[in-house]
Amino acid sequence: MATASKSTHKKAQQLGLAIPKGTLLAIGGKESKSQEERPDSQEENTKFISEQILKRFVKELYGKDPLVLVVPAASSEPEPVAKEYVKLFKELGIKRVEVVDIRTRDDAKDPEKIKQVDAAAGIMLTGGDQLRLTSILGGSPFLERLKERYLNEKLVVAGTSAGASAMSTNMIYRGEAQGGMLKDEMSSTAGLDLLKNVAIDTHFIDRGRIIRMAQAVAQNPGCIGIGLEEDTAILVKNGIEVEVVGSGLVTILDGMDISSTNIYEIESGDPFTIYDLKMHLLGDGKTYIIPAFNKEANAGAKSAA
Amino acid sequence: MATASKSTHKKAQQLGLAIPKGTLLAIGGKESKSQEERPDSQEENTKFISEQILKRFVKELYGKDPLVLVVPAASSEPEPVAKEYVKLFKELGIKRVEVVDIRTRDDAKDPEKIKQVDAAAGIMLTGGDQLRLTSILGGSPFLERLKERYLNEKLVVAGTSAGASAMSTNMIYRGEAQGGMLKDEMSSTAGLDLLKNVAIDTHFIDRGRIIRMAQAVAQNPGCIGIGLEEDTAILVKNGIEVEVVGSGLVTILDGMDISSTNIYEIESGDPFTIYDLKMHLLGDGKTYIIPAFNKEANAGAKSAA
Repeated sequence: MATASKSTHKKAQQLGLAIPKGTLLAIGGKESKSQEERPDSQEENTKFISEQILKRFVKELYGKDPLVLVVPAASSEPEPVAKEYVKLFKELGIKRVEVVDIRTRDDAKDPEKIKQVDAAAGIMLTGGDQLRLTSILGGSPFLERLKERYLNEKLVVAGTSAGASAMSTNMIYRGEAQGGMLKDEMSSTAGLDLLKNVAIDTHFIDRGRIIRMAQAVAQNPGCIGIGLEEDTAILVKNGIEVEVVGSGLVTILDGMDISSTNIYEIESGDPFTIYDLKMHLLGDGKTYIIPAFNKEANAGAKSAA
Repeated sequence: MATASKSTHKKAQQLGLAIPKGTLLAIGGKESKSQEERPDSQEENTKFISEQILKRFVKELYGKDPLVLVVPAASSEPEPVAKEYVKLFKELGIKRVEVVDIRTRDDAKDPEKIKQVDAAAGIMLTGGDQLRLTSILGGSPFLERLKERYLNEKLVVAGTSAGASAMSTNMIYRGEAQGGMLKDEMSSTAGLDLLKNVAIDTHFIDRGRIIRMAQAVAQNPGCIGIGLEEDTAILVKNGIEVEVVGSGLVTILDGMDISSTNIYEIESGDPFTIYDLKMHLLGDGKTYIIPAFNKEANAGAKSAA
């Protein structure tokens, strides 16, 4: 895996970007928001995360007999989702798997649940609705402890679908499939900000989401767009070092060199224009360094790829 | 001015929140997006920032014979706006005032403009359109240097109207006046993130924006909503210590204790419900500490207020 140089890390610190000791795994997923939308999909959902990706999660766990937490807070039906993940992790040899059942903001203050975070080696945020996740976890003691441990210890935090989208700084939560080409035909808000200077989107190819991501990137090119195809994940170390894991492609939209856009001049509902958006398409094993304002890091990524 | 305790600062560091050495001044403003909207308002706009607020900006500047930069990048008509600010600062005794004319992303890479940032003691981001500001400055070398100096030196960064909105983590950029009560009848994206864990809104009372801010806060209570009335500003030190300056009120919406919301369950266009949003209304001289996930800091703010 390509690593950022010491000067890159130093620069990140000068820009106030703490270098986390933990690892992130953001997975493109294949979970639907409701049973109505995709009947009978609940079971295949979780199974769709291939063994390759789940095995990588397990491999990254630190310590002997690691505890894995399943957090189905994004789901409107957390019980079957959680049950399936517990089964999958057990099959992969994890002996200690616990479910953290958070359905309200009060649940996210519960000291018992925070103790679970203290003891965990890995955490899996399941799919569902990313807006549910930020509404319930945003600013909560549960999230605070999770972030603190991710920054200062070797905690592995994985998220699939909504769980992956919510990890980034800017979180896209609405937009028509195969749409998003009109101004504001896409909605975003602040994500949980585990992965800085990034906007993650999932189910990227299947739901034709590249245009809505382009809109998000044009609004603020300080956030790189990372689109995850289903059965495809990114593993992130040191907050900026990205490695692709899985059968599909990862799409990266870099807006730093946009020469012109009318996104701020047009009316809501009008089609927008962007010149000179940069795109990378990366397959399994390929690496990338999130620029985070850093031209050096960009150059590093290119030479390493 | 109330200051956060040492333990608060330590906690912030554990959460990866760098403590900036610089100062922010976010002003509620009275600038309109276009001349069409409010004819003849361009001149009164800048004058509307009262002497009290501008004098405070000048007072906070560090060093002898400080250089002030006027950055009218948010405005579609930067020249008259810049001219007016130059005049105002000269009247307040500032001898060195320069305009940084950034109209494109290429301008935001210009080494000459970055040198201006290096030499500045204070920077004023004028009003206009906040989406223009993030589209043009987001991820640019100009913004990188500005942030680096704000974090590591005693730089004062002020913004009015759009310039204030763009400072925060989550940036609201669209919403009907006196509206915003329907899901997605409000749009936000990633701001320039100088002020962390906050969503700033301006012209707060005049344009009836409290409902759209409540929606933003419910989406992610990790960002505190700060609504600035016209002729009212917040001065922020150490990234979290807030002091109110000006003739109007500052509205703070704290969503950390929201007990229930349906924002993630309803359809786009439906009215939303939120229980237990906390509101503070603060007048001139009052202080507040941005919680940033920190219960200790909250307690500190209460005892200091």
